[in-house]
Amino acid sequence: MRSAEMIELWRGDLPESQHCGHAVICDAHGVVEAWGQPAQVIFPRSSCKMIQALPLIESGAADAAGLTERQLALACASHSGAALHVAAVGDWLAGLGLAEPDLRCGTHMPRDAAENRRLTCSDTAPCQLHNNCSGKHAGFLTLNRHLKGGPDYVEPDHPVQQAAKSAFEEVTGEVSPGFGIDGCSAPNWACSVEGLARAMARFANPGPDRRGQAMRRLVDAMRSHPDMVAGEGRSCTDLMRAMGGAVAVKTGAEAVFVAILPEQGLGIALKITDGATRASEAAITALLSHLGVLDPAHPVARDLLGAPITNCRGRITGELRTAAGFPA
Amino acid sequence: MRSAEMIELWRGDLPESQHCGHAVICDAHGVVEAWGQPAQVIFPRSSCKMIQALPLIESGAADAAGLTERQLALACASHSGAALHVAAVGDWLAGLGLAEPDLRCGTHMPRDAAENRRLTCSDTAPCQLHNNCSGKHAGFLTLNRHLKGGPDYVEPDHPVQQAAKSAFEEVTGEVSPGFGIDGCSAPNWACSVEGLARAMARFANPGPDRRGQAMRRLVDAMRSHPDMVAGEGRSCTDLMRAMGGAVAVKTGAEAVFVAILPEQGLGIALKITDGATRASEAAITALLSHLGVLDPAHPVARDLLGAPITNCRGRITGELRTAAGFPA
Repeated sequence: MRSAEMIELWRGDLPESQHCGHAVICDAHGVVEAWGQPAQVIFPRSSCKMIQALPLIESGAADAAGLTERQLALACASHSGAALHVAAVGDWLAGLGLAEPDLRCGTHMPRDAAENRRLTCSDTAPCQLHNNCSGKHAGFLTLNRHLKGGPDYVEPDHPVQQAAKSAFEEVTGEVSPGFGIDGCSAPNWACSVEGLARAMARFANPGPDRRGQAMRRLVDAMRSHPDMVAGEGRSCTDLMRAMGGAVAVKTGAEAVFVAILPEQGLGIALKITDGATRASEAAITALLSHLGVLDPAHPVARDLLGAPITNCRGRITGELRTAAGFPA
Repeated sequence: MRSAEMIELWRGDLPESQHCGHAVICDAHGVVEAWGQPAQVIFPRSSCKMIQALPLIESGAADAAGLTERQLALACASHSGAALHVAAVGDWLAGLGLAEPDLRCGTHMPRDAAENRRLTCSDTAPCQLHNNCSGKHAGFLTLNRHLKGGPDYVEPDHPVQQAAKSAFEEVTGEVSPGFGIDGCSAPNWACSVEGLARAMARFANPGPDRRGQAMRRLVDAMRSHPDMVAGEGRSCTDLMRAMGGAVAVKTGAEAVFVAILPEQGLGIALKITDGATRASEAAITALLSHLGVLDPAHPVARDLLGAPITNCRGRITGELRTAAGFPA
């Protein structure tokens, strides 16, 4: 389907590369503004972690385990695997009487520079606690203990994943066309960009019911603990801090980005078709500025969109710009 | 301008991301086959290093300095900054009575894992010899000594860069619409995808004249020293080895890839519009297989296009495929 030109990389006086995508802004009633094809089916990847965390609270598992707001933020996170994240997930598992081997997320080197350097220079392999999804998986294990399910909680037909699928289809308002296996081995259900924006708008307009209360707790947890949702120098953490905690944002692999704006009652979802994170970060920056919740002159916003790009001698080589027709 | 769908990332049974681009195959007489817009203006980036190296040989500077074939390969390289590359460029400069401070490429951490780890774990900053373009710059310095130019050989109006520009416009058969400053601070002149493919076809069909001889020497140097052109595990090195040295290939930043096929008398140039290297590597693999010079079943070809993508638990999550209408 036809996508919209969103972000351009300029070098000198000429455009060098271009990123197209689909973006939708919804309020409680539906689509407010859109670019590209709202019906485009995408994999939300990690951008839907707050949806996957709904059963954790709605089932009563979170309160039964006495989870803190910080732990709820970690359940919605793609963290950097910094020492504080690793310790927090380790403590969480210990509190459940579980340990690292109970995770099913697998291992990868952490993004956090200090922890990455520590592991690299000490010839130490990363453990599953370092996985950027380990907080989400600690949430899955907390729900699983409550549901008394089997140990392989990432299998698509497992009660934990079926609960996540039901919540996903309910808040997106769509029957998912299927799932893919995510990097952390959990099933990732597909939906339209509009469906994902609709879900974010529901998080921005939570009702008084059980679901609304769960949504409010997760959004407040993300906004109150931006350091748990990603990490130092990461776009989610920096953008939430730059907006003073007024908005919750979450990135997903392959250039998905979502935002929840409670004060405006708006939800945003976007996907850059080529999967480039530099473009999804620039595009969400443009949309948050367009909606007046992010100052485009803020250092964080400038860094993600519009600031001069310099080379290894400090010379300016170009910049990322929004394409004509997409909010500057 | 309208680009062609070339590469798709599939997750499970659904397409997740898509890469479009422009590709042209030329022979000595002109365009043989094309996808997207042959007239699209692009920055060749490092894919045109063999063009920038023509004046080094044509001026007599290379022979005056007694450059080896290995050094000529390094002049066309985007090397990994491995110990052997750093030593080779250091020795080259010493042979000219010059040293690292004479370079103007700047510094960045090397791609080579062992050297990167050595610098990281010993708190050592990389030097300009580690810059992936240091071989090209050693070539610039060799030409500069011959031309008796000033020390700032990367300035666009410097004799070294003017010689590179002239060679570039002659072999592309176009007047460049302008330049951008490259990551290594040298000017990078723009041309059309067709112009870049035409230049590669000229390298594949070298005449008996001075230029033809220079082209033959550079192509032979690249094919004979694939380890100098990039490094272990890098696509240029792996692809040239996989084709038994029959074809010279070179990547460029922002997803440009070129190939020189002397036996077929063909030249290839492609640009993925979004700048994703995973897609330019997959697309050149598809085109080299399409032309019968690369076995699509070869481990290197499979690794760049079509092999199952696995996550950090070893589970298959998807694969890169060619889009309908682009050679499989």
